[in-house]
Amino acid sequence: MHNGKVLVAQGGGPTAVINQSLVGIVQAVRRLAPGTPVYGARHGVRGIVNEDFVDLGQETEANLERVAATPAAALGSTRDKPDAAYCAEMFKVLQAHGITHFFNIGGNDSSDTVRIVAEHAAKAGYALRCMHVPKTIDNDLVENDHTPGFASAARFVAQAFAGANLDNAALPGVYLGVVMGRHAGFLTAAAAAARRYSGDGPHLIYLPERVFEMERFLAEVKATQTRLGRCVIAVSEGIHDASGASIAEQLSQNVERDAHGNVQLSGSGALADLLCEQIKTKLGIKRVRGDTFGYLQRSFLGCVSEVDQREAREVGEQAVQFAINADRDGSVAIRRVGDYAVEYALLPLAAVAGKTRVMEDAFISTSVDGGSDVTPAFLSYLRPLLGAALPEAGRLRAPAVAKLLR
Amino acid sequence: MHNGKVLVAQGGGPTAVINQSLVGIVQAVRRLAPGTPVYGARHGVRGIVNEDFVDLGQETEANLERVAATPAAALGSTRDKPDAAYCAEMFKVLQAHGITHFFNIGGNDSSDTVRIVAEHAAKAGYALRCMHVPKTIDNDLVENDHTPGFASAARFVAQAFAGANLDNAALPGVYLGVVMGRHAGFLTAAAAAARRYSGDGPHLIYLPERVFEMERFLAEVKATQTRLGRCVIAVSEGIHDASGASIAEQLSQNVERDAHGNVQLSGSGALADLLCEQIKTKLGIKRVRGDTFGYLQRSFLGCVSEVDQREAREVGEQAVQFAINADRDGSVAIRRVGDYAVEYALLPLAAVAGKTRVMEDAFISTSVDGGSDVTPAFLSYLRPLLGAALPEAGRLRAPAVAKLLR
Repeated sequence: MHNGKVLVAQGGGPTAVINQSLVGIVQAVRRLAPGTPVYGARHGVRGIVNEDFVDLGQETEANLERVAATPAAALGSTRDKPDAAYCAEMFKVLQAHGITHFFNIGGNDSSDTVRIVAEHAAKAGYALRCMHVPKTIDNDLVENDHTPGFASAARFVAQAFAGANLDNAALPGVYLGVVMGRHAGFLTAAAAAARRYSGDGPHLIYLPERVFEMERFLAEVKATQTRLGRCVIAVSEGIHDASGASIAEQLSQNVERDAHGNVQLSGSGALADLLCEQIKTKLGIKRVRGDTFGYLQRSFLGCVSEVDQREAREVGEQAVQFAINADRDGSVAIRRVGDYAVEYALLPLAAVAGKTRVMEDAFISTSVDGGSDVTPAFLSYLRPLLGAALPEAGRLRAPAVAKLLR
Repeated sequence: MHNGKVLVAQGGGPTAVINQSLVGIVQAVRRLAPGTPVYGARHGVRGIVNEDFVDLGQETEANLERVAATPAAALGSTRDKPDAAYCAEMFKVLQAHGITHFFNIGGNDSSDTVRIVAEHAAKAGYALRCMHVPKTIDNDLVENDHTPGFASAARFVAQAFAGANLDNAALPGVYLGVVMGRHAGFLTAAAAAARRYSGDGPHLIYLPERVFEMERFLAEVKATQTRLGRCVIAVSEGIHDASGASIAEQLSQNVERDAHGNVQLSGSGALADLLCEQIKTKLGIKRVRGDTFGYLQRSFLGCVSEVDQREAREVGEQAVQFAINADRDGSVAIRRVGDYAVEYALLPLAAVAGKTRVMEDAFISTSVDGGSDVTPAFLSYLRPLLGAALPEAGRLRAPAVAKLLR
């Protein structure tokens, strides 16, 4: 990194630990290449085009630690997807500032951005080291055991369903929570970690990896309601019919798409409201409540997995080590090598960029009652990622008093 | 309490600390009237009519502590409102079991239930000591400085908005969060505790204590968006127009009411979706996201104020002490006597029952920019209730890099 400058950017949806990766990069450069300037691009690649940089060399270690522990993207994020013209604009700015190393922290769209930038840099004969640092609550990067950001969001979802299950037991009826996840159901599936006692919800889990059939859904809700007198349901925002059309999209009159062509699913309660309406009208159940977890699950201040924090820091640090030692472009990936331990690998950008991982078949099944559910294998995969044990939900064991009148 | 039995019930919406009050009652009876049987009614007063009791004397101290730390209502709750016939049924059961002391933990509807039961007991010549133990996340009991359950829900709302503000700063646009509160805006107002730095959201706060005018709302959103390039808004589910008709109710085609005549506002994202649609179409802002916090804010496992926990335990214990020492029916109330300290008082049931407190005028104002907001007096009132400091949100202080091209 001698005589060059490092530039860091953040892309896509914020997470609880994306700033850990930012700080991991800054600190690793300070240690491994002292004196190398480290800039941050404000709002991702857009900050490059806009020549909107901050000098991260001016940050104190103490403030970096505070920022690392803060959710969302401290540099600002973007959903821009660079094309050739955009890249040309970026190169002008990068060259003017003598940037030689570009680290982009983000999900599969952001990894694709890194790939596009790297390709254009090669074509333009510009020596730019391009590194992708993984991040996404969706857990949908291929070639990774899991991705930084997922575990903290999964912890939020599990704690939310644990509480919703208790609330629903106190005032019985049907409760439905809609969880983020466009194509991959990992985050919705994490609701299963909320269960403690037999009979605890979520009792049904609907994932985008399976075709959503309204009739089967209603039958499973009815069966659970009949058996337990209540029903707690986790639904992915990305559920779709046999044609692949998302249920949420079918409802929305004004479909909004980002630059990557993704339909905007979050920030609306429409899907939960529709499903509740179906349950009320088709099954005649009176008390039906739907929540859409929305932005809380990715940004809530104060719900984080310490395993997630540690790994997010490490992928940043590893990205710098790979950039120096391997001296090639790539994407940092997390590999599980023990129960529980991880190692980090450097993959070619093309191996990860723009590809979407979904849940393995071995993670999806039906419950003992035949309802849509995840498998013990998924829970075994998930548990070590969540960090410290969830807060303990107790329940009364007091025996019934014998009836005197009835 | 000699020769009698104690019965405890829980009513209304669950909270993070209502089980602290249950355990406070059980433990106080064990200490102050050893040997007195303590029953719990399953699902509130409905458990009395159904003769559905559990024997809380069989609970271990350790399990009681676990239950105390668990959100929602461990005995189950109800929204039933007893009338004369219902009371007659209850008395038959209470008399058959030799119940002499009835403790009902709940909000203003539940306090009204206690008043009705006490009046019917007096009329029937049945010596039943009737105590109301306060609980409600809405903080809307009159004659109380605040109510158990409010502070923990307020902490959730503050942590949610602190995260949403950071997320919104990373990906700018308009973010709107709808918070519970039918008539009282306390919980929505708690969003203000999320602010740390100048410019932090929520930038606008809309409470049911003020008439909601769509034109003014849109003008304030536009002004904030113009000034900051983004806008974070807290909205109470109970906002209403000049006629008193709730905005949510105007949207809902099938209005659902409980036994107390309350319209069901939660469990639907309709209000957030409508307001977002107005902002998109009338102001032409593209990125507009709305979340409805729903049941998460009252039941989330692992977000609690330790001040709230302690006080919820104490109101239960005090209720037993008052029942023994004051030997009259009543409602336990929290009075603030220091900065910060509280004392507990026993009020006549009629002083509290069925009445609704709303936010004082001194707590509601406009911000320096003229937008709808709360006052520093409200924050000063709220802060000691929230318990330990919120997780610290840091932000980068790195200076801008001088532009070379523009």
